Amino acid sequence: MSENLVISIDAMGGDNSPYAMIDGLAIAHKKNPDVNFLIFGDEEKVKPLLAGYPSLEKSCELRHTSIKIHNEDKPGQVIRNKQSSMHMAVTAVKNKEARAVISAGNTGALMAISKLVLRTLAGIHRPAITAIMPSRSKRYVMLDLGANTECDAINLVEFALMGSIMSKSALNVKKPKVGLLNIGSEEMKGKAEIQEAAKVLSKLDLDIEFIGYVEPDEMGEGVADVVVSDGFTGNIALKSVEGTAKLVVRLLKNAIKGSPLAWLGLPFLIPALKKVKKTMDPRLYNGAMFAGLNGLSVKSHGGTDALGFSVAVNNTISMVRDNFTSELKTELEEINLEAVLWEVNNVND
Amino acid sequence: MSENLVISIDAMGGDNSPYAMIDGLAIAHKKNPDVNFLIFGDEEKVKPLLAGYPSLEKSCELRHTSIKIHNEDKPGQVIRNKQSSMHMAVTAVKNKEARAVISAGNTGALMAISKLVLRTLAGIHRPAITAIMPSRSKRYVMLDLGANTECDAINLVEFALMGSIMSKSALNVKKPKVGLLNIGSEEMKGKAEIQEAAKVLSKLDLDIEFIGYVEPDEMGEGVADVVVSDGFTGNIALKSVEGTAKLVVRLLKNAIKGSPLAWLGLPFLIPALKKVKKTMDPRLYNGAMFAGLNGLSVKSHGGTDALGFSVAVNNTISMVRDNFTSELKTELEEINLEAVLWEVNNVND
Repeated sequence: MSENLVISIDAMGGDNSPYAMIDGLAIAHKKNPDVNFLIFGDEEKVKPLLAGYPSLEKSCELRHTSIKIHNEDKPGQVIRNKQSSMHMAVTAVKNKEARAVISAGNTGALMAISKLVLRTLAGIHRPAITAIMPSRSKRYVMLDLGANTECDAINLVEFALMGSIMSKSALNVKKPKVGLLNIGSEEMKGKAEIQEAAKVLSKLDLDIEFIGYVEPDEMGEGVADVVVSDGFTGNIALKSVEGTAKLVVRLLKNAIKGSPLAWLGLPFLIPALKKVKKTMDPRLYNGAMFAGLNGLSVKSHGGTDALGFSVAVNNTISMVRDNFTSELKTELEEINLEAVLWEVNNVND
Repeated sequence: MSENLVISIDAMGGDNSPYAMIDGLAIAHKKNPDVNFLIFGDEEKVKPLLAGYPSLEKSCELRHTSIKIHNEDKPGQVIRNKQSSMHMAVTAVKNKEARAVISAGNTGALMAISKLVLRTLAGIHRPAITAIMPSRSKRYVMLDLGANTECDAINLVEFALMGSIMSKSALNVKKPKVGLLNIGSEEMKGKAEIQEAAKVLSKLDLDIEFIGYVEPDEMGEGVADVVVSDGFTGNIALKSVEGTAKLVVRLLKNAIKGSPLAWLGLPFLIPALKKVKKTMDPRLYNGAMFAGLNGLSVKSHGGTDALGFSVAVNNTISMVRDNFTSELKTELEEINLEAVLWEVNNVND
C-alpha cells in the first residue's frame, strides 16, 4: 500500500460480520477513496465479499485469521490469544501499520486488548468510551459510556479534558462548554467525586467553559458540548436515551397503525418523520472511541449494519486527520492534574 | 369531618401553588367525592379558590399558615420550622388526622420532614422515592428515584420488596417481575452492591419473580414490573427518559413546522399523536411516593398543573385504599433480610 492513511479493520466482530464490515467499507470508500484498509479476518469469507467491490478491493490488504472473539467470551480469556482478528487489528496500530482500528466485536475484549496493546497515554489514568450524541440544537460529546464503573475526581477531570479535545477536533467547537452529569435534587448534589471534580475544573486554566452540573434531561436541550460522567452513570443515561427514543417511535407507529384516519394523512408527513428519524438514528452516531490510549481504537455497535459501520469508519478517518491523539498529548503536557487536585484538597478556599 | 378517608394537602408547595392544588383537588373530588381533604396554606389565598368549588369546599378543612418552604431552601434549615405548610401537612399523618400527605414542594425538604416526622418502618433502613412509569406494554414501578445517592445491597433488596408490594397493590400484578437496573457491558456487570443484591434476591422466598439485571433500554419494553436501583442511578435514568421523550416530541414538532406538506396531513394524525402524548404525558404519572415510612408521603412534580396534581391525589387515594403501608409491614415481619444477607456473605455456594 502507498503512503495513504491506513485504518485497521476487525472484519470478524459484531452480529453481521463480515458482511456489514465489507459493505460498510465500500460506502466509506466512496467518501474517502484515498484511505487504505488493513483487514483482519477469515479469507474464505472476506475475499469473495471484497471481490464484489473492485475499487475498494484495490485499497485493501487482507490478512487471514480464522480466530474470532465471540460476544460471550470473557476479556480475561481472550486477551492472550494474539491470533484473533481483533488482537491482530489492534496490534497493527501499535506497529504503526495503521493509524486507527475499528471493531464491532465484544466491547470488554476490545477495551482490554486495546489497553494491553496500545497502553494509556502518559498523564491519563484510564481510557474512556466516548461518543457523539444528538441534541435539539447541536451534537455533543459524551464520556465515559461504560469503560469504568467507578471513577474518582481525577478520572472525571481527565475525561473532561479528552472530551473537550474531541469536541474541538470532531465538532469544531472553539471553546467547549463542559458539564459534569449529575442529579439536581435539592437534597444532595451528587457524589463526592463529582463535587471534587467540579472544584478542580473550575480552577484549571483550560481553553474550555466549565458550566458545572448538567442534568440528564438537559443533555437533549444541547446545553453542553461535553458531558462527563463515570462509565456506569454514562451507560445508564445512554441506554435510557436509546430506549426512550425507540419507545416513542414504537408508540407512534402503533398509534398510527390503529387509526385508519392517520393512514390517510401519513404520506404527507413522511418527509418530516424521516427528518426526525435521521436526527435520532443510532447508526448515524455509530463509533465510540476509546479515548486516552496511544492510538485510536474505535468500537462500532455490535448490531450495526453496513451504513452504521461506514459512519464509524468515516468518523474515525476524521479523528485521525484531526490528530486527536497528538492534540491530547500536547494538552496533557501543559497541565499537571495531580498538582491541581492536591491544591484543591489541601488549600482552603 | 366524618369517618371518611382524609388526605392531607400542602397547598403552598410547587410553582403553581395554591392554584394547581385547589383546581387539582376539584378534579380529584369528582372521582372521589367521599374523600375529605385537610388543607394547609394561606387562608387569604386558598379560601377564595375553594369558594369557587362549593361541592369540594364541603369536603375540605382549611388550616391557616403563611409559612411556605421555597425551592431554594436547604432541608437542614427548614426542618425545624414546625409551622410551615409542609411540616403541618406531614404532621397530620403522624397524628392520624390524615392517611396520607401530598406536597408539590421542595423534594429534599419533604423527604427530610417526612423522615423526621413519620420515621422509617421497622425493617426498612431507608425510604425510597417510588413512581409508576410508562412502557410499551404496561406500566411498572421504579425506585429509588433520588432519595439515596449511595445504597448497599440490603437497601436495594428492601427497595425490591417495597416496589413489589406497590406493583401488587397499585398495578394489580400478582407475581411481580423484579429486576435490578444495571449496565450490560461484557467487561463488568455493574457494582458490587448490585451483584450482592442479586444474590440475596435469588435466595429469598418471596412471592415475586426475580429476573436479574434490567438494562435501561429494556425498561421501555416492559420486561419488568419493578425496576430497582440506587437513587443516583434511578434519577439519572428517569431524567434521561423524560429528556429524550421531550426531545423526540420537539424534533417532531419542528420537522412538521418546517414542512408545508406535513401541515396538510397533520389533521388526520391528531388522534394518533394525542394517544402517544397521553401514554408519555408526565402529568399522568405524577405522584412519587416516599416508600418505607410509617405513613404515606407523596411528592407531586413541582411544576405540575391541576390535572397533574389531581392524578397524584387519585393515585394516593388508591394506595391508601390498597393498604400499601400495612401490606409492607406484614411482609417485612415475615422475612429477615439481615439474616439472608449474612448467609449470602458467609456460606459458600
